[in-house]
This record gives sequence, structure tokens and C-alpha cells, in this order.
Amino acid sequence: MSDILLRDLDDDGILRLTLNDAARRNALSEAMLDALADAIAGAGTDKAVRVVILDANGPAFSAGHDLKELTAARESADRGRAVFERIMRKCSDVMQAIVACPKPVIAQVTGVATAAGCQLVASCDLALAAETARFSTPGVHIGLFCSTPMVALSRNVANKHAMEMLLTGDMIPAPRAAEIGLINHSVPEGELAEATSEIARKIASKSAMTLATGKAAFYAQSEMSLSDAYDYAAKVMVENMLARDAEEGIGAFIEKRRPTWQDA
Amino acid sequence: MSDILLRDLDDDGILRLTLNDAARRNALSEAMLDALADAIAGAGTDKAVRVVILDANGPAFSAGHDLKELTAARESADRGRAVFERIMRKCSDVMQAIVACPKPVIAQVTGVATAAGCQLVASCDLALAAETARFSTPGVHIGLFCSTPMVALSRNVANKHAMEMLLTGDMIPAPRAAEIGLINHSVPEGELAEATSEIARKIASKSAMTLATGKAAFYAQSEMSLSDAYDYAAKVMVENMLARDAEEGIGAFIEKRRPTWQDA
Amino acid sequence: MSDILLRDLDDDGILRLTLNDAARRNALSEAMLDALADAIAGAGTDKAVRVVILDANGPAFSAGHDLKELTAARESADRGRAVFERIMRKCSDVMQAIVACPKPVIAQVTGVATAAGCQLVASCDLALAAETARFSTPGVHIGLFCSTPMVALSRNVANKHAMEMLLTGDMIPAPRAAEIGLINHSVPEGELAEATSEIARKIASKSAMTLATGKAAFYAQSEMSLSDAYDYAAKVMVENMLARDAEEGIGAFIEKRRPTWQDA
Repeated sequence: MSDILLRDLDDDGILRLTLNDAARRNALSEAMLDALADAIAGAGTDKAVRVVILDANGPAFSAGHDLKELTAARESADRGRAVFERIMRKCSDVMQAIVACPKPVIAQVTGVATAAGCQLVASCDLALAAETARFSTPGVHIGLFCSTPMVALSRNVANKHAMEMLLTGDMIPAPRAAEIGLINHSVPEGELAEATSEIARKIASKSAMTLATGKAAFYAQSEMSLSDAYDYAAKVMVENMLARDAEEGIGAFIEKRRPTWQDA
Repeated sequence: MSDILLRDLDDDGILRLTLNDAARRNALSEAMLDALADAIAGAGTDKAVRVVILDANGPAFSAGHDLKELTAARESADRGRAVFERIMRKCSDVMQAIVACPKPVIAQVTGVATAAGCQLVASCDLALAAETARFSTPGVHIGLFCSTPMVALSRNVANKHAMEMLLTGDMIPAPRAAEIGLINHSVPEGELAEATSEIARKIASKSAMTLATGKAAFYAQSEMSLSDAYDYAAKVMVENMLARDAEEGIGAFIEKRRPTWQDA
Repeated sequence: MSDILLRDLDDDGILRLTLNDAARRNALSEAMLDALADAIAGAGTDKAVRVVILDANGPAFSAGHDLKELTAARESADRGRAVFERIMRKCSDVMQAIVACPKPVIAQVTGVATAAGCQLVASCDLALAAETARFSTPGVHIGLFCSTPMVALSRNVANKHAMEMLLTGDMIPAPRAAEIGLINHSVPEGELAEATSEIARKIASKSAMTLATGKAAFYAQSEMSLSDAYDYAAKVMVENMLARDAEEGIGAFIEKRRPTWQDA
């Protein structure tokens, strides 16, 4: 495991992934994307992991793509096409891997999250940020519209809010990001770690089967018509009802005792 | 008509449906779902009904599915599958019947609306709540993710807000529910009945044909591409223009007089 | 060019289109729709135009369809059907032309924007309004549900907010419109022109190729599944990377100099 991405798993099953390439402002270089892909895949299959927190060392959460790495590829015969295609594919795959990961993923943001760094935050299930954190999709400043970041951005915030960020490239402060739905909460910087841990611990105390079932169903149904979504979700509910953890959980609720989950 | 669901139709054409099973926290038991299905179907075809208000007696608006009823079904040979399938189907049908009902449906919420009770609020066209009301999708606490409630929830609020409710199961107060779009307005408890009646009377004074046309078109177009939605909505507008109530309404507007609707 | 729609292009490439039929409250008469269609098509192909601002003279931004014009058509043998079809088609085409226009379009709203006038605001990429501006979809008052306006409205604001506007026909003030996402910002009336110009100048300083690429991609991907959207947006990014303005922009960024765009 490269140390550009640190992993720390605690006793509650909370895996903290820390972007650790402060010198490059935690750019999503090919190496960083590979490390993230590996870590998220690992978190998905590791029973000891119940929730993932994604944070970062240094003043930037993540500055997005590594422009020097991309620019270096222009020297090749195809003017970089093959490299650009590979990196855009890897980046999109990492974002979708977060969505597909059976464990909830929470972004804990300090500093600036820009371009694909902003997309990373938008792709997480939940996001908390320090009040001092800032967000932008500034590709328009350099002639490269944030077209892949906008896929995640536009699935989180209203059209006009997304368009303002994309067309102007302006930074928005965390309180505004919370207002428009890009993040869940903006909290004083000194309280961010504890606020994030608290929500992570709360989620980690639930049945892993139930969380995996629900997260997958959430994103699946969101792309369906209302009628298809209900047909699908009703089936998910029936299977969930028949699973051991729901029987235990409902039984415990009725008997006013604490449930014991299968994977706990 | 069972008295677990009270019906009261006033002279303005406002049908008040009151969940009246306070002892079971207005659980959406099979009997309650049947009563709601019947009442909503009836409201749809009864010309005297112009608007529906859905409220509840007791400290809970609705606690969602009746867990004791579901649990009792586990004794059967199929471990409850047939009962679970039937009840999930009935519940999804009631929610979609509210959406499909040609009369606008307004939730008037006091107390807690949880799980399928929260879904019921999300499924209404409009919702007003007392400032003291609270909302949650707490299935995750008992190993049963609120997968059907999330169909309605995620069509009303931003992804990260929906995910926070679903993954933590936490209660949100009415003012926060208004902020994220789950309800229209949070008002002081003493003013809720009047605020809801006022909006209901306003809507009841409109042409029933126009409301039915518009409500159906709203949900239909929301599942289409922009181009298809415009093709469809433009056709709806042309037919609406040719209908008697639009001719009367536009004529009255131009002549600065009060319109008289066909079904008034 | 009819003077019901004024055009003014400044040295920054900002084209100001001004609805100029105050006597008819800037109704979207057939003549106005034709003038808008012509102006937006022209803006799309004119290299001198980088951004479009849409504003209005008189107390109303726009009152929507010209009801007298529509009513006059009722005298014909088909009771107006052909005219209604033609005007609804033209209106929907203008709204979609704004979305399809390769130049960003910003609404600058004073006074009231109602019915198709509200739709016009919702259809722009960005919208700023004076705090005194107001918005409504009041068709329900005259028996003609705002079915085409709701296509644009419901793609900008949450369902319950859209439904409240559509079912009640009530006016909402600009600060509320900003809160629900119908507009970007509500500003003191005396500061509106400068606030709009500032954002327009900022956008006008970007690469026209990049803006056109990004705007088209934004609306295209918004109708796709997450997976299709990423496949599509990743391709857009690769082509954008290979374009001259991205090479220049990224080079300028790395060398800490000002970029020079191809079409500047």
C-alpha cells in the first residue's frame, strides 16, 4: 500500500482513508486513483470494515486531476489521448466504486476540494466539512470544463447551483455547500473530526447486511420510474424482512432489548 | 368504513381523512392500508371532493408498518413471505394511489411520522407540519432498511439529505424537513389546522378539471426527457385550452369577473 | 428586428436581450416568441456573442402567454386548435433553444415573472433577480394549468415546492425563489444590473469552446443513468483535453500566466 493513501481501521469498524500527498495538494494522480480503487474494493469485501471515512492531510482536501501528469502525456505520439482516456476511466471508476461500495462512505473535508476533488466529495454517501472548507469546479478557468465532476455535482444540487459553480469556477464556502445540498453539514473546524466520528459510529452500530441492502437499493431505485422503483423496493423489503438481522432487529424492538447483528 | 380512518367532507369540497388508530400509533396495518386505499379511490371519483387533507389523531402521525402484524406472519410455513409480499404491495399501491389521485392531497402533520409514515407524507402533493413534528426513516435501527419509504423520500429531497436520514435513522424536526423539501412549511402547532385549511380552500376554489389535468401531467412529465416532456406538456396545454373551464377562466380574466367552473 | 425585443452587444461579448413590450407586460405573444427564437439562434452562431443576458423593460419581466391573442383564435372553425398548437410549439421550442444555445444565458429579473414568463427564467442557465421580483405559475386561477411552465419549473425546484406554486398559483418573492433553487440569487434592486454584469463578464472571459462543450454536456448527461453519464462525460473530457484551449489553459496555469483563448 502506497503511503499517498493512509488506512486506519478502528475497533468500531470505521476505516479512515486519508489522502496523504499534501505536496501535490492530494491530486488524483494515477497513483492516487489506483490506491483509492484498491482501498475501496478492499473495504467492500472486508467484514471488519463497517463504515469508511475519507479525509485528507494538508491544506487541500484534493485539487482534482494532476495537471502536470496529464500535460506530460502530451509529448507522446497520440498527444496524450491514451493516457487521458485511461485516467478519466480510472477516475470515473473510483467515483462509481464509492457509490457501489456496500459500506457507507463519509467525506470529512477540510481545506479546498476542487474539480475532481469536489467530485470525490459529491460521490460519497455523506459529507461533513469544516466551516472554513471551500468547494469549486474551476476547470473553466483553464479551458477544461469540469464535465466528469458535474456528473456527481448535478446529482446532488439543483441545476442553477451546479451551473453557477461550473460556469464561473468560483469557490463556494462550506455553509453555502450545505445550503445547496453538496454536503450534509458545515461545522466549526475544531468539531469536525468528532462530528464525523459520531455519525460514523452511529452507522457502524447497525447491521452490515441492512446497510449494504439499503445503500445498493437507494442508488438503483433512484434511476427508475416511480412504478418500477416501488416494484423493486417492495421486493427488497420482502427479502430484507426474511433476513436474519431483520428478524432479530424487529424481535429486539418488540421485546425492548438490544439487537445482536450477524456480522457484529 | 372502519373507524380507524375517519372521513369528513365539508361544504368547500375538502375531504379530511384522519388516521384514527392512536393506540397503535396509526400504524399502517393491513386494515389501515385497505381503509386508505378505499378512501383515496373514493375521493378520486367523488365529484363532491375537491381536495383531500390527511391528518391523524394521537401523538404519532403514523409509525409506519405494524411490526407486530408482520412478526405474527413469521409463524406460517413460508416464514411470512406471502404476507410480507401482500402488505408491501398494498403499501406501495396506497402511496402510488395518492400520486395518481386526481384530487390534490395535503398532509397535515403533528407528532412523529416515521418509516412508512414518513413515506406517506412524502407521497402527498403538499405537506404542512407543526414545528414540533418530527420525521425519520428509522428502519436501520431494527435491521430493516426503509427501502420503500426511500422511493418517496428520494423523490423529494437531495441525495445526501435522504441518505443521512436512511443511514442514521435519526429524527429531523419539522423546520429541517421544510429546509430540505420534505414538507412545504413548518408552522406553530396552534396555527397548523388553519394554515392547512387555508391552502386547501384556495385549491378547492379552482376548476377540478384543471387540477386533475395538471396533477396528472406533473408526475407524468417528471419521468420524461426534457424534449419528450415538452412534446407531452404542449399537447396537454392545447387540450386544456380547448376545455370549457379554460375558455370560461380566460374569458372571466379578460372581462375582470369571477369564473364559474363546470364542477363547482 | 422588431423592437419588441432589443439587442445590445457590448465589447465583452455580452449580448443583452431586452423584452420591450411593456404595454402587454412583455407577454410571450407569437411575435415575441419569433423574435426570441431568432435572437437566440443568432446568439448561438455569432462568434462575437459570448454570454446572453435576458432582461425586460417595464414593471413585468413577462406575464407569459398573450391571452388576448389566444382568445382571438377561438373564433376560427377549429376553435383555435391550430393556433394553440403552433404557439405552444413555438414556446416550447424557445425554451429548449435557450437550453441548447452554446452560449450561457442569464435571466436578470425585475417585476413579476409569471406562467411562461416564470418558465423563461427557469429555462435560463442562471438567474438573478431583484429582491422585489416575484414569481408564479398562476394558470390554475384561469382554468389553464401551467403544464408547459412546470416542465422547466420541476427541473429546477423540489416537487413539493413546484406543486405548491402550481396548485395555488400564489406569487413567491425573489428571496424564496432563491431558497428553493428557481433562481441563483436575490439582490437589492439597485445592485441587480451590476451583479448580473459581473457574473456575465466573468463567464465571458472564459474559452467559448469550453463553455459550449460544458453546457451541452451538462444537459445531456443529466438525462442519463450514472454509468452512462460517466461514460459520456469521460469522452467529453478526453476531447476537451485534446482541444487547443485546454492545452493553452493548462499550460498557462502551470506557467502562471494568463491564457489566450482561440475565440477571444
